[in-house]
Amino acid sequence: MIETIFDVKNKIRDVADFPKPGIIFRDITTALKDAETLKVMIDYLCDQFKDIKIDYIAGIESRGFIFGMPMAYKLNAGFVPIRKPNKLPAETYSQEYELEYGTDKIEVHKDAFPQGANVLIVDDLLATGGTAEAACKLVKKTGANLVGIAFLIELEALNGREKLTSSGKIVSMLKY
Amino acid sequence: MIETIFDVKNKIRDVADFPKPGIIFRDITTALKDAETLKVMIDYLCDQFKDIKIDYIAGIESRGFIFGMPMAYKLNAGFVPIRKPNKLPAETYSQEYELEYGTDKIEVHKDAFPQGANVLIVDDLLATGGTAEAACKLVKKTGANLVGIAFLIELEALNGREKLTSSGKIVSMLKY
Repeated sequence: MIETIFDVKNKIRDVADFPKPGIIFRDITTALKDAETLKVMIDYLCDQFKDIKIDYIAGIESRGFIFGMPMAYKLNAGFVPIRKPNKLPAETYSQEYELEYGTDKIEVHKDAFPQGANVLIVDDLLATGGTAEAACKLVKKTGANLVGIAFLIELEALNGREKLTSSGKIVSMLKY
Repeated sequence: MIETIFDVKNKIRDVADFPKPGIIFRDITTALKDAETLKVMIDYLCDQFKDIKIDYIAGIESRGFIFGMPMAYKLNAGFVPIRKPNKLPAETYSQEYELEYGTDKIEVHKDAFPQGANVLIVDDLLATGGTAEAACKLVKKTGANLVGIAFLIELEALNGREKLTSSGKIVSMLKY
């Protein structure tokens, strides 16, 4: 039985030296392939926002799609993908963010949300917070109302949360 | 009210000349952002497999994640991502497939499924069938039992279905 956050954490596989030497990769695939754990993760994240009306889930490509879509299904919300450059076919807003070396970009359709709609951003992992911060800026550019961000995992030592003040309610299920 | 397949089709946006001149891109984001349409799409696809025990949904990166995860949630199945190269951290099987120019690869974890488990592959679009065929080969390599493939959209003129004989039950919701 998967009953506690500790049980879910036990389903995450640690892979040493991926994607490069010295990094411990928190592999969520071992949790996702267990049907009971999958349900507990989605239900937990949804439950944290039960007192807020969520009109749209915005999932960050591509593991934000994994958690965001079942949350949208369960919460009766619409789903909006935030994607890597040149993947969305209509007009987009674009937002750059810093990587360890260089920069990258994410995009959202300009007409993704009606003005003032309540939007919850979803991703699998909060590390340095660069991608999530860029996603927040994108949602705000559209004129929607950002109500929070949900992550499965938070790497607390990297202080990503500090980049996400004024982003509504920040929730992570598993903290390392 | 979204009641028929025709209503869902009306929510798909046609974008001309994307990703290149002469192509009409079927943009699913306008369907996904409508909460009611989202629910109807997921429920329809799940319903087509209600007489088959599905142990695992295998979603093809990245739009197969969008449809595969809520289906796994609803069907009480586990979810396994089939990913682009070098994204999965543990040992993988790899399968090459042909593109218009050149080749590409997708991968799955070797330990993704128990032997003989019933697996349903999910993706957004059946076009030439190259990616889906590669995904079928990957699932079979693991020793799992491929029971079918579900697509939101099928471009019938491209005859992708012909590549998917001996892949179980093939379902697409919206045919063009």
